[in-house]
Amino acid sequence: MNMPNVQYKNLDASAAFQKLREHRPERALSELLTAERIDKFEVDAAGGLRYNYAAKHVDSTTLDLLQQLADEQQVIEKYRLVLNGEVMNTGEGRMVLHHLVRGQAGDAVTEDGRNLREFYKEQQGRVNKFAAKIHSGEIRGSTGQLFDTVVQVGIGGSDLGPRALYLALQNYQGRETNGSNRRPRLQAYFISNVDPDDAAEVLSRINLESTLFILVSKSGTTLETLTNEAFVVDAMKKSGVPGLQPKKHIVCVTSETSPLAKPGEYLDAFYIDDYIGGRYSGSSAVGGTVLTLAFGKEYFTQFLEGAHEADTASLEPDIRRNASLLDAMIGVYERNVLGYPYTAVLPYSQALSRFPAHLQQLDMESNGKRVNRNGEPVGYSTGPVVFGEPGTNGQHSFYQLLHQGTDIVPVQFIGFHESQLGVDVKFEDSTSQDKLNANLAAQIVAFAKGSSNSNPNKSFPGGRPSSLVYGKQLNPRALGALLAHFENKVMFQGFVWNINSFDQEGVQLGKTLAKQVLGKGDVAPELASYASRLSVRRS
Amino acid sequence: MNMPNVQYKNLDASAAFQKLREHRPERALSELLTAERIDKFEVDAAGGLRYNYAAKHVDSTTLDLLQQLADEQQVIEKYRLVLNGEVMNTGEGRMVLHHLVRGQAGDAVTEDGRNLREFYKEQQGRVNKFAAKIHSGEIRGSTGQLFDTVVQVGIGGSDLGPRALYLALQNYQGRETNGSNRRPRLQAYFISNVDPDDAAEVLSRINLESTLFILVSKSGTTLETLTNEAFVVDAMKKSGVPGLQPKKHIVCVTSETSPLAKPGEYLDAFYIDDYIGGRYSGSSAVGGTVLTLAFGKEYFTQFLEGAHEADTASLEPDIRRNASLLDAMIGVYERNVLGYPYTAVLPYSQALSRFPAHLQQLDMESNGKRVNRNGEPVGYSTGPVVFGEPGTNGQHSFYQLLHQGTDIVPVQFIGFHESQLGVDVKFEDSTSQDKLNANLAAQIVAFAKGSSNSNPNKSFPGGRPSSLVYGKQLNPRALGALLAHFENKVMFQGFVWNINSFDQEGVQLGKTLAKQVLGKGDVAPELASYASRLSVRRS
Repeated sequence: MNMPNVQYKNLDASAAFQKLREHRPERALSELLTAERIDKFEVDAAGGLRYNYAAKHVDSTTLDLLQQLADEQQVIEKYRLVLNGEVMNTGEGRMVLHHLVRGQAGDAVTEDGRNLREFYKEQQGRVNKFAAKIHSGEIRGSTGQLFDTVVQVGIGGSDLGPRALYLALQNYQGRETNGSNRRPRLQAYFISNVDPDDAAEVLSRINLESTLFILVSKSGTTLETLTNEAFVVDAMKKSGVPGLQPKKHIVCVTSETSPLAKPGEYLDAFYIDDYIGGRYSGSSAVGGTVLTLAFGKEYFTQFLEGAHEADTASLEPDIRRNASLLDAMIGVYERNVLGYPYTAVLPYSQALSRFPAHLQQLDMESNGKRVNRNGEPVGYSTGPVVFGEPGTNGQHSFYQLLHQGTDIVPVQFIGFHESQLGVDVKFEDSTSQDKLNANLAAQIVAFAKGSSNSNPNKSFPGGRPSSLVYGKQLNPRALGALLAHFENKVMFQGFVWNINSFDQEGVQLGKTLAKQVLGKGDVAPELASYASRLSVRRS
Repeated sequence: MNMPNVQYKNLDASAAFQKLREHRPERALSELLTAERIDKFEVDAAGGLRYNYAAKHVDSTTLDLLQQLADEQQVIEKYRLVLNGEVMNTGEGRMVLHHLVRGQAGDAVTEDGRNLREFYKEQQGRVNKFAAKIHSGEIRGSTGQLFDTVVQVGIGGSDLGPRALYLALQNYQGRETNGSNRRPRLQAYFISNVDPDDAAEVLSRINLESTLFILVSKSGTTLETLTNEAFVVDAMKKSGVPGLQPKKHIVCVTSETSPLAKPGEYLDAFYIDDYIGGRYSGSSAVGGTVLTLAFGKEYFTQFLEGAHEADTASLEPDIRRNASLLDAMIGVYERNVLGYPYTAVLPYSQALSRFPAHLQQLDMESNGKRVNRNGEPVGYSTGPVVFGEPGTNGQHSFYQLLHQGTDIVPVQFIGFHESQLGVDVKFEDSTSQDKLNANLAAQIVAFAKGSSNSNPNKSFPGGRPSSLVYGKQLNPRALGALLAHFENKVMFQGFVWNINSFDQEGVQLGKTLAKQVLGKGDVAPELASYASRLSVRRS
């Protein structure tokens, strides 16, 4: 394997960062933003998408210094190490291979003689064959009914990403890419929370006889997911339906060594491995199984192609020609030089309604770290808080603070020329799609340039930075590229901050304490006090 | 009317605030949190709820100073002015009467000889009668079908609050409070976004003949909502269903002077007035119509009673005995003394899945202001960024940053002893509900106390503050109290910051620029450039 020689150092040890801290653009953002700049500050972002950063408060010196910083922190070299199978998740001693699930962007990666690209392809092939049999009716429910519903049972990365992607493509359901099969695919639901009302509510909507459950847990030990499996099996047993065999309605997505890897006991099992982190697993079998069952293999294949295209484009070392790297570097500038503690993600696309929730996990779980990859506390801010809702909805909600609050919140806009369904109406001389995008254009300019008014309550200070990712339509390929754009942005930022973006030790303490509460032994008095307030029956 | 004599001054002109800035608790939060403190730092929060603030980093001196600050800023007196009908929305010259919708907590408020409490009651009575006729089948669709579906068409406060409340009580649907009527109520959907895919997707799920639409716009001029009305009417016209009369499937919730106030043209119209702000309108006819149609009048009445109970409890001047005031004051301390720029709202209740999105609007639109009520820029931070998702889901997502990020994010937990549906399963010796609440207890302690480990990557610094609102069950009464708790908290904070929490001028500039884009005239080149990138067809 081709392993570049890299060094790891903290952001504040970087010479470029020191220079960056001392530089500010001479002119205000409101003055900088011109039509010429909008044309110039734009770069291809794969999958038919473009990334426009004209409304970010950077000038050519800022960009040069960000280029130096990216070079100094060797982010592209480190990305190559990821692609080539180096152990980049150092804390857990694991490779980081979610890119390999969608294509070969680096050298071949093998483990114990097995080519892992082939392994991932094999699993997706197995999912495709399985889905085809479900769609054709060759595989049916245990009482003979066709499967028309699929329920993903998983939490965290097994839920947020797949759910956001499902909603993003839901409008593609039933539109076949060729005329050979006009049968609608499966409708999907998701059960994630250990709150029993989550599973109970979903189960109240579905017909158990025609429902396939996908149990998703890499380790096979996720407590919420195993509990919800028990919940589902219990419901099937209590349903009184003659001949209903619960395990014949369940497929597992898990690792080969997990307790759930029992294809004989369940209807089937599809595999991932330890190198696919939960929040990066949307393009693996974790997302692929439910999406292929819902939409068919053609759309999921296009989605993977879009993601792979973005992965390849992300190898470009010139930040002005690499959208995800540029997005990452501007984010570091806003976080560590300008001191903004949050980022809003605002898609002007209802289909992306849960995409911000996925990015919230992706970003905050990856980069919400206070120690560097050697375990030393860092002396600078790392990952920001990420939040967002679709526009125009947000305009009638929290945008008030974004426009006129005391603090500046950088914004990441996403938009598309065309709607997905193509059903529209003209009202007051414009279509809804035109209104949607007119609002998006207006918001970028309003945030950047503001507007003065003799009534200070109606004045807008401006100077509020945003960027825009846009394309023709949110189709499967664009969605894949969009997902990979953000995954790679987050990874690049982790390299700049010298942290491990691929582990999540911060989730462990709560789990440990919860187990103590549920166990038989003594617990700390304050823990017992809260548990008692919440009426937890300790065993 | 009983109008206390009040003065308005900025936070940084307050003597108590100067003292507050100089005081820090002597001991760390991790040391402060004991079982005794948990017992002591708790107060009733109406509706059967309790507010526990033991895991906030405050001591008795902090609380005394916050009491002084609340007194100095005369927050209770100002709340009395709100209740008594003073023009507290000064920018728009309006009274602020959402409390009056749920009960009379102050003096009678009249306008042009009309008692406004009676007006709001009259409207809710009309909604109740209308809903009863819909439920009994006395009023049917224009082709004779029973209405079984209701679609709320509105945006911002006409969407987020009602939607969050609908989801919160959805599990109550079909459970009658008496045995007289076992017929399920209407299932609700919501159309908000001007993105045509939003309306098209909802319309693809419903039967137009059995669907009632509620068109909600106080002014009757909200562009998104009128556009979506046109979308819905167009779909009905194109449906080809003989005899289908679109306007006979639509009721309006609007002000009496609005262009939508045409009960003859539509099936009916219910009224609010200018004194019910959008984000405060969940308990008015804006939320009441859809919730009464979905759940029946008994549950909505209980919801209003819970809210009124909280409104009355919020009159208590002693911060240690007034949960919403205490929550507000601790929030000010965290924002303006400790400098935390955000707050996470984490309900351990799947039914509250969209409650954080509603609070995000409520808080950020109310207090995201940079000028005081006189229009002078303030020299301190006002409203924070608010975000959140239900637990335990969030534990597997962004909690990583909350536990181990470089910055501290204060947390607002919400929990209940019992689930809503009561369907549960034992797995590994505990129920799902017990697991849910064990996790909640564990998180509070984990955030506050942390945990050290020889591996710094597995260490938790602790010192991360949280509070807990909890009760027996998320029933309609508790939900009303919960909503009012946060509404009043936000209002109190606005008084402390000396801002107007009841207007939203920050939404105007974007609207103006969007209209320019959609109009025929010239627009600024940068606006034209973005519009062209997004393929907006200018008329």
